[in-house]
Amino acid sequence: MIITSKTNRPELMDIKKYLTEKRELVENELLTLLQTDGLLTDHFAAMRYSLMAGGKRIRPILCLAAAEALDCDPAPPAVSIACAIECIHTYSLIHDDLPAMDNDDLRRGKPTNHKVFGEASAILAGDGLLTFAFELMSRHDFTALLTPDESLRIIHILAHAAGPYGMVGGQSIDLASEGKEIPFETLQYLHSCKTGALITASIQTGAVIGHASDSQFEALTGYGEKLGLAFQIVDDILNVVGTEEELGKAAGSDAERNKATYPLFFGVDKSREMVKETVDAALKSLSEFDNKAEPLRELAYYILSRRS
Amino acid sequence: MIITSKTNRPELMDIKKYLTEKRELVENELLTLLQTDGLLTDHFAAMRYSLMAGGKRIRPILCLAAAEALDCDPAPPAVSIACAIECIHTYSLIHDDLPAMDNDDLRRGKPTNHKVFGEASAILAGDGLLTFAFELMSRHDFTALLTPDESLRIIHILAHAAGPYGMVGGQSIDLASEGKEIPFETLQYLHSCKTGALITASIQTGAVIGHASDSQFEALTGYGEKLGLAFQIVDDILNVVGTEEELGKAAGSDAERNKATYPLFFGVDKSREMVKETVDAALKSLSEFDNKAEPLRELAYYILSRRS
Repeated sequence: MIITSKTNRPELMDIKKYLTEKRELVENELLTLLQTDGLLTDHFAAMRYSLMAGGKRIRPILCLAAAEALDCDPAPPAVSIACAIECIHTYSLIHDDLPAMDNDDLRRGKPTNHKVFGEASAILAGDGLLTFAFELMSRHDFTALLTPDESLRIIHILAHAAGPYGMVGGQSIDLASEGKEIPFETLQYLHSCKTGALITASIQTGAVIGHASDSQFEALTGYGEKLGLAFQIVDDILNVVGTEEELGKAAGSDAERNKATYPLFFGVDKSREMVKETVDAALKSLSEFDNKAEPLRELAYYILSRRS
Repeated sequence: MIITSKTNRPELMDIKKYLTEKRELVENELLTLLQTDGLLTDHFAAMRYSLMAGGKRIRPILCLAAAEALDCDPAPPAVSIACAIECIHTYSLIHDDLPAMDNDDLRRGKPTNHKVFGEASAILAGDGLLTFAFELMSRHDFTALLTPDESLRIIHILAHAAGPYGMVGGQSIDLASEGKEIPFETLQYLHSCKTGALITASIQTGAVIGHASDSQFEALTGYGEKLGLAFQIVDDILNVVGTEEELGKAAGSDAERNKATYPLFFGVDKSREMVKETVDAALKSLSEFDNKAEPLRELAYYILSRRS
């Protein structure tokens, strides 16, 4: 039985309602955290612009849902860590969009950060968000709700996933690969660093917050790795078949840049099949979890069917 | 008695030898830490290029010297934290030099990172170094030598000093102030964020490593704040009176960019006088410390007399 066929499953929860609630929880906290006045007003405005530009908040929600799967209430510190994750994700989008990088004018249907604030301010807004994430994660009022060891572990998970061995490294390999023929193994490695690492880390931090046992941590990591891969293949497919309106950014840009993608290696149909298989494997990783992992399961279906 | 007159002091140590030894200690560790192969080789090469481009390593040495002032051997974890500090400092230089920022071709007499690796790789090298610093600070093999609380405190001190309320914020205000007349208070605030925060934080992290009491921490913070200010005023003066050869970068660039500086507000002679007074105040902050604080004292003289 292919468990990604939703018709086989009873409706256990309203995922749209869940996503809306959690998104609002994260966005309200982000707005509270990113307030300041005086000489720093402009800098914070640039950071807030991209933070509040309407993201789906998948990564912070995965963190909250992983903590919930372990029966941990998504109150602080989970929400604070979730916000830090979204700061890291947003910084990476701001820097990716820069003229020297992907040179994108639109992101989520809105002008990119450098289009609004200028290139220098956009670089600094990204730098600010990245550093602020670590400031948040080490703030005494947040860390007091975890053991210092748990806080340190969360910081390490996210720094490793976002750093040279993770997201930045993946972006660097992506850059070096543009316009070149690369083997499939390179594409896999690139995806696992560039997209997979932060998605997996988001779930791992939720696992730490929820005091996961070693086997629970391992199972959630497996779920995260597969989900991250599925997410990236869907991204690749949408870049081919999506419209600019749906994506909120230019469609077909990967092909224009001669980027290696799953559809380029396997075609769109086979890539879609691979997404289903990967989501299926992600769901199987959750087999030992009870109904409290339902949001994680529904998030996998959501990623399978997303249009942007 | 003005204590910055060195003739009044016996020679207690050979500061040049001390600086060389500590610089080598930090550089050897940096080289070890920034090694990798495979697909990440180019990314690490870009990070290593700027890291190993001959900096004076003032900030990491201040961290080591502060730990030493508290009778703490500058072995790990101090060296690892010192390396993380240098990664943060180097990232800030790479991003400051970018075409969209100061557009500098030379740094420490060598082509800037984007001149060698291109703009996109330079942005990523900076991002990588910043994130790697937090990865290092949270690595279990390093943090095991401190209490988890001490590790978290160090991470928070550095994230706060490097982030929106510190270095990045200062850089943002600096950018917004270019070509504008700003009040002296804005220049003071800008300097304290942009340069002072990371210098003070370097000393504070050394204080945490050395298990400082509250009053020792406060005294070292006072020393750091004054040292940071003196450092920036000297920077301003050197930009006016230094030669390109001495500085390893273009001289007179502040005036060209209409940047507010201490010499612009007070002239070079009065600014020099202010450096002496500030170093004097820094030294007074150390009055309760014994001979083990001699490297910190000599570092203050060193900053007073530096030519680049």
